[in-house]
Amino acid sequence: MVRMDTAVTTALPYKVADLSLAEAGRHQLRLAENEMPGLMALRAEFGESKPLAGARIAGSLHMTVQTAVLIETLVTLGAQVRWASCNIFSTQDEAAAAVVVGPDGTRDDPKGVPVFAWKGESLEEYWWATDRIFDWSAEAAASGADWIGPNMILDDGGDATLLVHQGREFEVAGSVPEATDATSHEFRVVLDTLRRSLELSPDRWTRIAAELKGVTEETTTGVHRLYELHAKGELLFPAINVNDSVTKSKFDNKYGIRHSLPDGLNRATDVLIGGKVVFVAGYGDVGKGAAEALRGQGARVIVSEIDPINALQAAMDGYQVSRLESVIGEIDILVTGTGNKDVVRLEHLLGLKHLAVVANVGHFDNEIDMAGLESLPGAERIEIKPQVHEWRLPTGRSVLVLSEGRLMNLGNATGHPSFVMSNSFTNQVLAQIELWTRPDAYPVGVYVLPKHLDEKVARLHLDALGVELTVLTPEQAAYIGVPVEGPYKVDHYRY
Amino acid sequence: MVRMDTAVTTALPYKVADLSLAEAGRHQLRLAENEMPGLMALRAEFGESKPLAGARIAGSLHMTVQTAVLIETLVTLGAQVRWASCNIFSTQDEAAAAVVVGPDGTRDDPKGVPVFAWKGESLEEYWWATDRIFDWSAEAAASGADWIGPNMILDDGGDATLLVHQGREFEVAGSVPEATDATSHEFRVVLDTLRRSLELSPDRWTRIAAELKGVTEETTTGVHRLYELHAKGELLFPAINVNDSVTKSKFDNKYGIRHSLPDGLNRATDVLIGGKVVFVAGYGDVGKGAAEALRGQGARVIVSEIDPINALQAAMDGYQVSRLESVIGEIDILVTGTGNKDVVRLEHLLGLKHLAVVANVGHFDNEIDMAGLESLPGAERIEIKPQVHEWRLPTGRSVLVLSEGRLMNLGNATGHPSFVMSNSFTNQVLAQIELWTRPDAYPVGVYVLPKHLDEKVARLHLDALGVELTVLTPEQAAYIGVPVEGPYKVDHYRY
Amino acid sequence: MVRMDTAVTTALPYKVADLSLAEAGRHQLRLAENEMPGLMALRAEFGESKPLAGARIAGSLHMTVQTAVLIETLVTLGAQVRWASCNIFSTQDEAAAAVVVGPDGTRDDPKGVPVFAWKGESLEEYWWATDRIFDWSAEAAASGADWIGPNMILDDGGDATLLVHQGREFEVAGSVPEATDATSHEFRVVLDTLRRSLELSPDRWTRIAAELKGVTEETTTGVHRLYELHAKGELLFPAINVNDSVTKSKFDNKYGIRHSLPDGLNRATDVLIGGKVVFVAGYGDVGKGAAEALRGQGARVIVSEIDPINALQAAMDGYQVSRLESVIGEIDILVTGTGNKDVVRLEHLLGLKHLAVVANVGHFDNEIDMAGLESLPGAERIEIKPQVHEWRLPTGRSVLVLSEGRLMNLGNATGHPSFVMSNSFTNQVLAQIELWTRPDAYPVGVYVLPKHLDEKVARLHLDALGVELTVLTPEQAAYIGVPVEGPYKVDHYRY
Amino acid sequence: MVRMDTAVTTALPYKVADLSLAEAGRHQLRLAENEMPGLMALRAEFGESKPLAGARIAGSLHMTVQTAVLIETLVTLGAQVRWASCNIFSTQDEAAAAVVVGPDGTRDDPKGVPVFAWKGESLEEYWWATDRIFDWSAEAAASGADWIGPNMILDDGGDATLLVHQGREFEVAGSVPEATDATSHEFRVVLDTLRRSLELSPDRWTRIAAELKGVTEETTTGVHRLYELHAKGELLFPAINVNDSVTKSKFDNKYGIRHSLPDGLNRATDVLIGGKVVFVAGYGDVGKGAAEALRGQGARVIVSEIDPINALQAAMDGYQVSRLESVIGEIDILVTGTGNKDVVRLEHLLGLKHLAVVANVGHFDNEIDMAGLESLPGAERIEIKPQVHEWRLPTGRSVLVLSEGRLMNLGNATGHPSFVMSNSFTNQVLAQIELWTRPDAYPVGVYVLPKHLDEKVARLHLDALGVELTVLTPEQAAYIGVPVEGPYKVDHYRY
Repeated sequence: MVRMDTAVTTALPYKVADLSLAEAGRHQLRLAENEMPGLMALRAEFGESKPLAGARIAGSLHMTVQTAVLIETLVTLGAQVRWASCNIFSTQDEAAAAVVVGPDGTRDDPKGVPVFAWKGESLEEYWWATDRIFDWSAEAAASGADWIGPNMILDDGGDATLLVHQGREFEVAGSVPEATDATSHEFRVVLDTLRRSLELSPDRWTRIAAELKGVTEETTTGVHRLYELHAKGELLFPAINVNDSVTKSKFDNKYGIRHSLPDGLNRATDVLIGGKVVFVAGYGDVGKGAAEALRGQGARVIVSEIDPINALQAAMDGYQVSRLESVIGEIDILVTGTGNKDVVRLEHLLGLKHLAVVANVGHFDNEIDMAGLESLPGAERIEIKPQVHEWRLPTGRSVLVLSEGRLMNLGNATGHPSFVMSNSFTNQVLAQIELWTRPDAYPVGVYVLPKHLDEKVARLHLDALGVELTVLTPEQAAYIGVPVEGPYKVDHYRY
Repeated sequence: MVRMDTAVTTALPYKVADLSLAEAGRHQLRLAENEMPGLMALRAEFGESKPLAGARIAGSLHMTVQTAVLIETLVTLGAQVRWASCNIFSTQDEAAAAVVVGPDGTRDDPKGVPVFAWKGESLEEYWWATDRIFDWSAEAAASGADWIGPNMILDDGGDATLLVHQGREFEVAGSVPEATDATSHEFRVVLDTLRRSLELSPDRWTRIAAELKGVTEETTTGVHRLYELHAKGELLFPAINVNDSVTKSKFDNKYGIRHSLPDGLNRATDVLIGGKVVFVAGYGDVGKGAAEALRGQGARVIVSEIDPINALQAAMDGYQVSRLESVIGEIDILVTGTGNKDVVRLEHLLGLKHLAVVANVGHFDNEIDMAGLESLPGAERIEIKPQVHEWRLPTGRSVLVLSEGRLMNLGNATGHPSFVMSNSFTNQVLAQIELWTRPDAYPVGVYVLPKHLDEKVARLHLDALGVELTVLTPEQAAYIGVPVEGPYKVDHYRY
Repeated sequence: MVRMDTAVTTALPYKVADLSLAEAGRHQLRLAENEMPGLMALRAEFGESKPLAGARIAGSLHMTVQTAVLIETLVTLGAQVRWASCNIFSTQDEAAAAVVVGPDGTRDDPKGVPVFAWKGESLEEYWWATDRIFDWSAEAAASGADWIGPNMILDDGGDATLLVHQGREFEVAGSVPEATDATSHEFRVVLDTLRRSLELSPDRWTRIAAELKGVTEETTTGVHRLYELHAKGELLFPAINVNDSVTKSKFDNKYGIRHSLPDGLNRATDVLIGGKVVFVAGYGDVGKGAAEALRGQGARVIVSEIDPINALQAAMDGYQVSRLESVIGEIDILVTGTGNKDVVRLEHLLGLKHLAVVANVGHFDNEIDMAGLESLPGAERIEIKPQVHEWRLPTGRSVLVLSEGRLMNLGNATGHPSFVMSNSFTNQVLAQIELWTRPDAYPVGVYVLPKHLDEKVARLHLDALGVELTVLTPEQAAYIGVPVEGPYKVDHYRY
Repeated sequence: MVRMDTAVTTALPYKVADLSLAEAGRHQLRLAENEMPGLMALRAEFGESKPLAGARIAGSLHMTVQTAVLIETLVTLGAQVRWASCNIFSTQDEAAAAVVVGPDGTRDDPKGVPVFAWKGESLEEYWWATDRIFDWSAEAAASGADWIGPNMILDDGGDATLLVHQGREFEVAGSVPEATDATSHEFRVVLDTLRRSLELSPDRWTRIAAELKGVTEETTTGVHRLYELHAKGELLFPAINVNDSVTKSKFDNKYGIRHSLPDGLNRATDVLIGGKVVFVAGYGDVGKGAAEALRGQGARVIVSEIDPINALQAAMDGYQVSRLESVIGEIDILVTGTGNKDVVRLEHLLGLKHLAVVANVGHFDNEIDMAGLESLPGAERIEIKPQVHEWRLPTGRSVLVLSEGRLMNLGNATGHPSFVMSNSFTNQVLAQIELWTRPDAYPVGVYVLPKHLDEKVARLHLDALGVELTVLTPEQAAYIGVPVEGPYKVDHYRY
């Protein structure tokens, strides 16, 4: 990876400072590859035919060990790639270093992929790095072209896509608007970034937008932005919604959290989960995984829900379903995984047992009213260790808040394991191949992957688990009206 | 209920022979009502306003205790009802009797609903009974009208709907075709039934079809027929697909089988499930419920799947996933729940352990190759007790076949419990209300219930389980972009 | 089996009236044999050497299909056997008939074992039958001896053992005391039985007692009596406490109830267990099995305990632990399995939800205050079906009481499955062999089976479940200080 | 804590170098106290009466945060204490520092307990530290006595007890024997330590042994040594076997491993456990906890056993039971928890899947043949991170070995959680009180705690989990023949 200051002053902006970091990263990549059979299978299937030859991918997604395996898979399939992280804290530096050096490179002769990401970026650095993945001048120079840009985006949260749309909009307008008092700090940085760009080139983003064949988007949030853009008629290129593949949304939420929630609780607190009363707010896929994990450790789990269907599912699965305020005084561990705001409010924090643990595995930071806690007169914050804080309350009791109320499966554990990410990322690669190789099939719009590819993702993960798949006879296939090789289900099938 | 022969010769065809049967039935209805809070809540909500006033419902659905509660709910909501069963074996005679007598009736003065169903009908009797629910001459006579017909159908499997469509088709054609060698026994009976009808009236079905405001259909099979009819442009009235409500398909399959599979195994065999190796073919909703139930009894469960996504789910849930032939010699109990044919083939039956139990909880009888078994030279069938047969095989081993290969949760147990059926039937009633009261909203076509009604079904079942539902604040609702009162999820949400 | 009246007037008291009953019984025996691998393995191991040759066993134990397999195993091992049931209701008549006829016999030429038991005996008949198993005059006549008596007892609850001790005591005293007002009805019958005996012979029981080499006892209750007798110095022959073998007490309670509790609930009520709140009183082995079974069906389980260690176990296993009165109004199904009295009291019954189910899987009938319920003014009892009664309470609510408050796993289901009983009965047979073949090893006293035999019982049940046992190397065995072939654990090991 | 070199040269050998370490430790102690309700309850109950007044305890047990809470509890109950760790790696330095400083002390004025322990001692340092806990000269000086020694031992593994017995033996003999070639390195250090002691004083250990009122021992290993000593007639003072309290052996093994095994796997590898095939060698309490934890994470668990009873339990709990060699090629994660040696042999390591994880949660290091692996030609060891090593094998595959084959729940996780240790340590404190206050009740010998104290330990942990205990009525207690307040079970009850 590269620091901003060196990056702008060196010819090889992705030169690596620390080779031992890259070596440690390569060990981890090797282990991760073993847990990412989907991606490795795509390398085996497409490594020779290189369906992504010609694709120049601007990638914006957490720069972790798993993403490193994704990046090297894209390269193996023929793509050229530049990468930034989509979060200022989520980069694993050794993974970034390993990708930059590449499997066969050295510090002084890196053969990998330019990565612009490090753990703990400022917002200025973050948007600078995002801008970098659209600057392919080094590649142009290497190939002797006068200009080349990316022709594909792989996005997580939509920041890369935003930059292109926003940049082009300002180029069309001829100027970047001034920030006002209401402008957030982050958007000021975006405006500054685009203002600098406009000064250097009046049509850079317009040219890039024209070149782009499409974007594949990882998350709910990014997908939501894409549907909005498309609804307003402003979407500039086709998009594939990777988030709603079954092998993405039903897998990483449920099985990822089942793994990383107890992991984070253990690393943070070492508190015995067995025998404890645990409250899980929300019984969507995240809540289902959380409740299963905690019951599996011998906890008594109480669930809350706003949706009567999910509430009934929770009851049918044997959980007590109560409002948080009804049982607040019994709770040892409070987990929120709703995607909504203000789920754990100040009155809840004040009502918990002494030293109850508070953990967020939802989506946004505001599931827990940390702001209320911070401004509570008489409340005192004591750091037990990084990401674990005791808040002494005016009641005389304390609560233990993990990751300052942010996602504790990232902050106190290591996020989704490789095997889960292999499912998500295999969807990503297949989506990139779809958009790149079958452009006519995808006019501007937002698509989910066809079911046969969703099934393919699953299929590529079976061998690693020793799963034997049963094969339909032609007669059986005809009988239920599906092809022998699938797809097998109607679109609204719920799994 | 009524026997065919008496029915045609009496003025009150639904006169009950056996009052004590009706009394036993009413006890069971009372217990079932306590387990069917959704239907009882609809009685409380709509008992006064009677939204089904004017509706004349021809119902064709298994005449069980639970259906009795459904029928009396429809009546409480203002409907007139006539009923037949949709299966020759599934009627519980005491339930039929109780419905005929009614809550306040006596044998000689029944005040209930005409039911044409008894356990163990012949096919001739079955189609006669189905024809009866379309004959409202008694009601016409009672109200002084010269003719009235039903204006709604409540269907399970589509036989009632079929009769109308087929009858009208033949009336349009002017004659009923002759059976050929290829005509099944059952369709011959249908043809005979309609031929008799045509002799009596040239436009009976045409008139009925014109009168009908719609049908609500319970099952996958019936729904499939409806979509086919509509695709061919032949559907004569709107239809609501009750089967694909979340509170139907995700509930009765999974939670119903979880209950009734071990129940049927126990009643049939008394074999200890704990410690046994159980094979579950198919990991759809049925398979998921089956596997959970058997693991909960201490069995080791092996699963098979053709769909890689479901296979991966099974693995993630901790089950071994193998082809049947790979593990055939280890299996103590073999359960099939796929909806496909030829899942358990002769070679499998021959490879099982001595006295292994074979159980079908799928959909059709042909999941197990009973025909192959019956024609196997040297195979011998010994009745241990009704619905439990030992088949001695030429290998010297035996297998225990439940319910002659048919659905053992019906044959060896009592089908879905009342609470599960309350979910399904509350969907049915809401669907009837929708079609009857909002005809403009449903032009001819096939619809699923709107999500807010699906959620309502769930909501009506929470109190009985002591579930407290959490209520969104207006701010939270706005934040996630849903109304406070729901619906809460996008249509493709998978639950 | 035989009716009392015919028995006393026929030369072949065990002539069978109904051959088809015996045939049905033999089918069931064949199925049960497949589920009783321990007994079948003993037949294979000892069928030739016949270690029980010369043993004449007086057996008193529930005359079920499983017991039939036990009896025929004893015979295969060389013993002569006479049998009575130890409970007036527990006989399965087809099993008794099958045993009497024997595998190769016919109605007119029975070749089996004399059984004096039928379902629904009076107390007079019961004690007459128990007396019969000590009357070996037919065998004496057949062998030309002038007198022979039994030399072994196989007992369940201790009634056979009681008769011998009591009979000898009265013979020593020279008379049987008169009943007083305080004498229970049952003990009056015992006194009458022994008085008749004393009239016929002054030393019959003394002679039998002298002949007896020992007794093997099945139950807690019987074992308790034996320890008391021995403590008072009155025990007349050695006894083996089969009840406290690990493969008995840790298996039949836990795994037996796990199977038969949901079975009984289903057969009795068909109420969906999933989603319901179930209360389990007692978290011993019975409670552990009950809680596991109900959670496995999706119920929410609340447990009560008096022993803090078991209470802590319940909490560690993830259950809510509460007093019954604290949660009485939330309970859908109330299960008691404590072995204590007055666990479910009238105030509890009055506080339950409408139509809550009340089930006893403990030991004695008085776990539930049925007497209080029966004498409650305004309470009304309605039979829904045999063994299922609705009690309408003055509160306006009802409760559903199973098996009239008695053991519902027997009354509403079929008791322990064969595989569980195979473990218990293999202990019985090994205990009989020990006492019969190694009399010097067991002076008068009460013993548990040596651990190597307990382990043997388990070992004989592994193959049927496909279990592969790992074998210690001599070095490993030496390292942990045990023989390669076991026993492996110290006596106080808790499993 | 203190370094050896400073210790011998300072008047206050336990002066703390790093106050911030002590502060961090005190934070952790505060959190741990909340998870150790048993110890805190003893402080509340006995803090005023101080039953341990006069007791001078030499403690040898892992110097962790939990032990710190134990030590301060002993002090609160009136004891004087000196402490060493019983393992060279297990000390948590911040815990040691916190104990030395004490709740109210400062670096320059410590008011706590002398602790001689730090993480990473040499064997020389270890035995020096163990010797220090018997040197009470500072306390003698403080009290003006000419000599005082400890009068109680609290031991884990028996090293402190060994030193006294061995020291006295050599004093009786008049000399310490020379080491031979066969003497292990560790025993050489012991001999050197005692030789130095003998040079300074001819009767130090004799005097100490005479003074000692008893020892309470934590572990299987230590208990085994005590029984051996007593069997040889060499035990010098009474001993309480804390290990075999129910609330110790059935709790820390099962619930401790259930917690710490997945924790260690996650911290070491981040490999998704869900869907993986996990092999658990041994189904004792450790194996039961391990299997439950892994199934709870969605793994498929295969178990091995040598004891047929435990094997049958595993089968009844739904696990596949196989020999390791039968399934070696399917295993993703291999866990051994047997307490035996050579369970995972070289041929097994060579047969595993590529990058399979190998984890020891048994007792001794030799469960896995690490020596064989280290001497295997062509095998290469790569450190992925501390305590996680990839071993590249000549087969071309690798295995991931955790904690170099030692206990990974200690090496890769943090051992038993506080709540579990609270159970164990409450037993320890009660055992110390028994021996100290009721010496007449315990002549020289080895005892387990009376059952009423075992139950008391459990009782003290119920409130923290919200458990309501049910109380027997006097009638109920009389009926089952136990006191209302317990103990409730016969000694051989297996829980």
